[in-house]
Amino acid sequence: MKPPAPRIAESAAAVLIGNELLSGKVHEANLVDLAKTLRALGIALRRVVMIPDELEAIAREVALESAAHDVVFTSGGVGPTHDDITIEGVARAFGVRARIDDSLAGMLRAAYGDRCTEHHLRMALVPDGAELATTADDKWPIVVMKNVWVLPGVPQIFRMKLSVVRAWLQGPAAFHSRAVATRLDEGKLKPLLDQVVEAHPGVDVGSYPKWFDATYKTKVTFDSRDASAVDAALSAFVALLDPGDVASVE
Amino acid sequence: MKPPAPRIAESAAAVLIGNELLSGKVHEANLVDLAKTLRALGIALRRVVMIPDELEAIAREVALESAAHDVVFTSGGVGPTHDDITIEGVARAFGVRARIDDSLAGMLRAAYGDRCTEHHLRMALVPDGAELATTADDKWPIVVMKNVWVLPGVPQIFRMKLSVVRAWLQGPAAFHSRAVATRLDEGKLKPLLDQVVEAHPGVDVGSYPKWFDATYKTKVTFDSRDASAVDAALSAFVALLDPGDVASVE
Repeated sequence: MKPPAPRIAESAAAVLIGNELLSGKVHEANLVDLAKTLRALGIALRRVVMIPDELEAIAREVALESAAHDVVFTSGGVGPTHDDITIEGVARAFGVRARIDDSLAGMLRAAYGDRCTEHHLRMALVPDGAELATTADDKWPIVVMKNVWVLPGVPQIFRMKLSVVRAWLQGPAAFHSRAVATRLDEGKLKPLLDQVVEAHPGVDVGSYPKWFDATYKTKVTFDSRDASAVDAALSAFVALLDPGDVASVE
Repeated sequence: MKPPAPRIAESAAAVLIGNELLSGKVHEANLVDLAKTLRALGIALRRVVMIPDELEAIAREVALESAAHDVVFTSGGVGPTHDDITIEGVARAFGVRARIDDSLAGMLRAAYGDRCTEHHLRMALVPDGAELATTADDKWPIVVMKNVWVLPGVPQIFRMKLSVVRAWLQGPAAFHSRAVATRLDEGKLKPLLDQVVEAHPGVDVGSYPKWFDATYKTKVTFDSRDASAVDAALSAFVALLDPGDVASVE
């Protein structure tokens, strides 16, 4: 299916699937791109879970996250071999069977030509009832079952698929982020931050010490879907500081 | 406490805490080092969860993972400010209160000198009943509540603390890993892999396509706590291949 008007999602979860991630053999590389993409869309990523290539674990986790969030993304476990069981796991999460999709099978036959075997065609499996999401620029579809987007684990391909996510999904409103880098340590900042946090309950205030940087000691961040609330909290915070304690304002 | 005889743990989970990870502002950097450390110790990391700086979410997740695994590691949310609530979350997970630990308070006073305020002393909070784990080389203790190890989020400090983990914990037996890089795609490999997987149920066989590498197409991995079982599965797999299909054997 081609992108319709974007679907609105407020909250998201990600399920990262793969023994190689948990063993430390492979450095997980997809999450940060997904997180940045969702952030830019105004969708709040609320939870990430990393689990092994195990059917029951995938089915249980996908069912839980699908019920708790507007949209869920899986990464990994997509392919033809015995350890590629994400599609079966998603199918089981929704109590349906996996079936071969004819249009995907046709694309695989066109891509592999004479080398295409029944084993390659395992990559045409979809949960019964799934949609296929594409864009004009990326014809190879993403399998979407209800609110679960099944993304590949290979980082280069994962990143390509994020353009499809951007075309199909959107948050209810953008996030606004600002930050102040200060020369004060967190112990000094705490009473000032407590004042700002109490007076600006709609703004998410974060405090991040920078241990190995000479230019500042702590970065204080201000995040909200309400831009004017972010500006107000930041201004209130800066007003509590001596000018010499401010290294930069973003 | 100084390291006694290592404690034996078969399974582990990690709880990564921080809004900045979920927003994509910060690239999570601790997990891969934890995963490699546990792997080298022979401890199986079974599950990782990333959650925001929210007290109930931390308490709920720590309680669940603590019950389901031999050992749990948290990362992040340790410090003096309003968004540093991991200690309170761990305390709540076990139904105890957080209290100031006198020895930690003394260390903070010594480190900060005259600049030490009541706010800095929030970093001396521990769940009631916690132990403090150190080594001769790293005197600043890790707070350990039952089977939950509370690690800092700053990556440079997180990595230093892994030496304490290595001194205190050990798996029941080492993991053994081997791999074959092949010039076959996964569709071709599938029937061969199915044979090996069926005949070697004690070995975890993984298949990882390499999309953007000219030297091989798929890496097949063999993992088990039983080294001879790994060797047997690898040999059985190689015997099914044409020699020209093998790019390398590790």
